[in-house]
Amino acid sequence: MPLNPYFIKRRVRKWWPYIAVLVLIAIGYYKGIFNQISSSSASDAFEEQTRNTMKEVFSLQRQVKLLKSVIKRYSIPEKEYSDVLLPVIYVITPTYARPHQKAELTRLKSVFLHVPALHWVVVEDAPHKSQMVSEFLKLSGLTYTHLHQLTPDDWKLKSNDPNWRKPRGVLQRNAGLKWLRRKFMYDGDPRGVVYFADDDNTYSIELFTEMRDTRTVSVWPVGLVGGVMVERPQVSTIGTGPRVTGWLTGWKTNRPFATDMAGFAVNLALLLKKTKVEFSLNSPIGYLESNFLEKLVTLDQLEPKAELCTKVYVWHTRTEKPNMKDEERLRKEGKATNEGIEV
Amino acid sequence: MPLNPYFIKRRVRKWWPYIAVLVLIAIGYYKGIFNQISSSSASDAFEEQTRNTMKEVFSLQRQVKLLKSVIKRYSIPEKEYSDVLLPVIYVITPTYARPHQKAELTRLKSVFLHVPALHWVVVEDAPHKSQMVSEFLKLSGLTYTHLHQLTPDDWKLKSNDPNWRKPRGVLQRNAGLKWLRRKFMYDGDPRGVVYFADDDNTYSIELFTEMRDTRTVSVWPVGLVGGVMVERPQVSTIGTGPRVTGWLTGWKTNRPFATDMAGFAVNLALLLKKTKVEFSLNSPIGYLESNFLEKLVTLDQLEPKAELCTKVYVWHTRTEKPNMKDEERLRKEGKATNEGIEV
Repeated sequence: MPLNPYFIKRRVRKWWPYIAVLVLIAIGYYKGIFNQISSSSASDAFEEQTRNTMKEVFSLQRQVKLLKSVIKRYSIPEKEYSDVLLPVIYVITPTYARPHQKAELTRLKSVFLHVPALHWVVVEDAPHKSQMVSEFLKLSGLTYTHLHQLTPDDWKLKSNDPNWRKPRGVLQRNAGLKWLRRKFMYDGDPRGVVYFADDDNTYSIELFTEMRDTRTVSVWPVGLVGGVMVERPQVSTIGTGPRVTGWLTGWKTNRPFATDMAGFAVNLALLLKKTKVEFSLNSPIGYLESNFLEKLVTLDQLEPKAELCTKVYVWHTRTEKPNMKDEERLRKEGKATNEGIEV
Repeated sequence: MPLNPYFIKRRVRKWWPYIAVLVLIAIGYYKGIFNQISSSSASDAFEEQTRNTMKEVFSLQRQVKLLKSVIKRYSIPEKEYSDVLLPVIYVITPTYARPHQKAELTRLKSVFLHVPALHWVVVEDAPHKSQMVSEFLKLSGLTYTHLHQLTPDDWKLKSNDPNWRKPRGVLQRNAGLKWLRRKFMYDGDPRGVVYFADDDNTYSIELFTEMRDTRTVSVWPVGLVGGVMVERPQVSTIGTGPRVTGWLTGWKTNRPFATDMAGFAVNLALLLKKTKVEFSLNSPIGYLESNFLEKLVTLDQLEPKAELCTKVYVWHTRTEKPNMKDEERLRKEGKATNEGIEV
């Protein structure tokens, strides 16, 4: 049946306001406008949601501010923790049982806890891992690997030997290197730095920032070593970039690499590439570090750190053997003071 | 003119759809409904705002997560930094110039940086503040006060004296106490703890958590002191709560308070109330701490910490005087190794 145009026109004229109202009501319904107008509880819910979102934003902002202030107070440099791709520093520490061993490890822990992406490889000179070191490492909050490697009696210092008579920590450092080589055996792109940190030295937080980007071998001054206030690389800034030209030491100045163990760090990939490089029990006195570095680099490849080797960030300190006079007497009487308490 | 009710009724019947449409349009206008329907860019703006808010929430959540992971990695306990009303630990450290002074201060810095609300009062035994210590403290990231107090020659150890011959650090600790008493002179409610930390000892991070809530004087074991592995308070748990009944030491066990300087902390308010209490140059050998504590508390008022004095969190370590044999030779030749470099 064809529609009568006039009829439709009249109908539209009569009904359009009703249709318009219905259309507007429909739009309002779908957009939720009536929820907001008619129902005060629904409107509250909407506003509450917005309020909650804003509350969350403010609370998170407060949290970020507080956490950043803590991080600042603890002197953690921002660039150190914001980069998740930081090369890991593998710190290899030989250690052995003695009254002040835990005190020494505690001091290292305090400084290492400031350094992100640090992996501590602790190698005990013992026939087995000790309970004390195991527990200490477990509770340290550090990432670590615990190894042990006994030095045969022939290679140990006698109690009356001066401490330079025989190289110490040799087999322990080599055990650390062996562990690293095994760990990265199938890694095509190993990124990291290796540092040999004995347990009695004093390390500053800054030292680890300095060694982080070592490409071959980086070097820096070491305080209170070799009978002098400081031993350090000689740096020339003439020509193309700064380079090490020799060594300022008080003793055996003609060693090819006249640095202390605490004075250098090695790029991990370089150390892995040179598969045979390790420390030698046969190095002459004072030549342990030099013999090791000779197999890795030439002098001109060294990277001078610590403001061109003008800053001291590590000290070759030594802890006095504590006086145990009364302890020996008490022990004979069966009254050791450390009975039931770990020192 | 009175309105004819019939007239109004007819008018309303004719115009109400128009009025309804106008009312709905007005509501829609104020609620911004047409902006959303007609203008896609305005709708985008609204959605963009929501999106941005959510983005901000996610970004802040990510930041909080990252910062918390850093704080966790650095072993900073959450309760330590979340409480802004933490009582401040005032650590008073006497120090004096020697080759390994900066190394010692560096070690203290590493552990103190882990402790929130710590104020370091460094007192140099010197006629004036040294440049080295000033610069070190300025760059340390710690809150500090730098003082100096010279010990007169009569009271100084001679170079061949055994180190126990005369009490050391007495006037420096007293200078620290004097500074505290002046600082809090007008403070009606001083909250805090005072600890005397010599610069050669080894302190664990946990020690400071232990001493934080000291109400009178708190005590704990000290390792490697007085010729034994550990000196410690004797604790009885019989009766009302644990209390200190005496001392386990290898030496002078009859001292009223047979503890080392590193073995106790004092509540700040208590120390301020007893205005005359300080260390005495006239204390007999080994009685410096005991004479000081006698003036503050009785034995039964002591608070045993460190799991009822069964844990060692501080060690009385001593750093070997470094060998300077070659340095002396070089210095005579005018070639000191530390020329132009701070060690």
